[in-house]
Amino acid sequence: MRGAVDDSLSLRWMRDALDLAKSAASRGEVPIGCVIIAPDGETLARAGNEREATKDPTAHAEIIALREASKKIGSWRLEDCTAVVTLEPCAMCAGAFVHARIARVIYGCDDPKGGAVRTLFSIGQDARLNHRFEVIAGVLESECAAELSSFFAKLRALGKK
Amino acid sequence: MRGAVDDSLSLRWMRDALDLAKSAASRGEVPIGCVIIAPDGETLARAGNEREATKDPTAHAEIIALREASKKIGSWRLEDCTAVVTLEPCAMCAGAFVHARIARVIYGCDDPKGGAVRTLFSIGQDARLNHRFEVIAGVLESECAAELSSFFAKLRALGKK
Repeated sequence: MRGAVDDSLSLRWMRDALDLAKSAASRGEVPIGCVIIAPDGETLARAGNEREATKDPTAHAEIIALREASKKIGSWRLEDCTAVVTLEPCAMCAGAFVHARIARVIYGCDDPKGGAVRTLFSIGQDARLNHRFEVIAGVLESECAAELSSFFAKLRALGKK
Repeated sequence: MRGAVDDSLSLRWMRDALDLAKSAASRGEVPIGCVIIAPDGETLARAGNEREATKDPTAHAEIIALREASKKIGSWRLEDCTAVVTLEPCAMCAGAFVHARIARVIYGCDDPKGGAVRTLFSIGQDARLNHRFEVIAGVLESECAAELSSFFAKLRALGKK
């Protein structure tokens, strides 16, 4: 699952995504963050989850970041772009990455309940679909997982879950 | 695949979705339409594809309709709601239906290249995910398929595909 991205770049992007996840948690959102990186390394879009604030079931960090990046470059094709996300994307977000022709998905920790690029499905590697992307897993894995565990532990303590 | 929905209702909703698909085609969009129906039968949202106009890779009819319906009821939970769509939903849209807790998906024709509720994946029937929905396929199937075939035939004649 290791690809051709410089490790120091992956770490820098994931730290940014992790900051977005922490910021989401402070607003009561599930702490997941995503950044979209252009082929030249520029950050095109940054987003955290906004489902609770917007009441929108599609407002995952990845979808918001994809929409913002597409708006920025004026095209739904994000060819040669990289998505960096703290948690393994779900089927919705993995499917959206296929539609956007994303070249590479770098993520932090696996999602055993809904992960769709490696764990439950392998949507980025499915030869039946019209696009495939590279997957790099495990960047800042423990930090990304800890952020989620801490958030859900607090919810449980508050009796909300 | 047959469910507890009155056939005449399914047909009425699908005719509405098909009108939205035709309207999308007239704007140069892939002709797919979707309506979201509340438990009482009220139409909560109506949308056609808008990917080309918005340059948004996530702007499938289903995603736009889900976002509109959620906004209307002020919640990301569309429990007991029905989604009616002319083409079998892709992984992105099927995943979004799971997140929105949609109860039932009624669609027109199968999508052999990307269908994710029956053809390539069965996302609405996967016991590993946290929600399942009923799937009813083949409502106005030939009309829905003809709309797509006609659109792509015109594109080919114009040398665009």
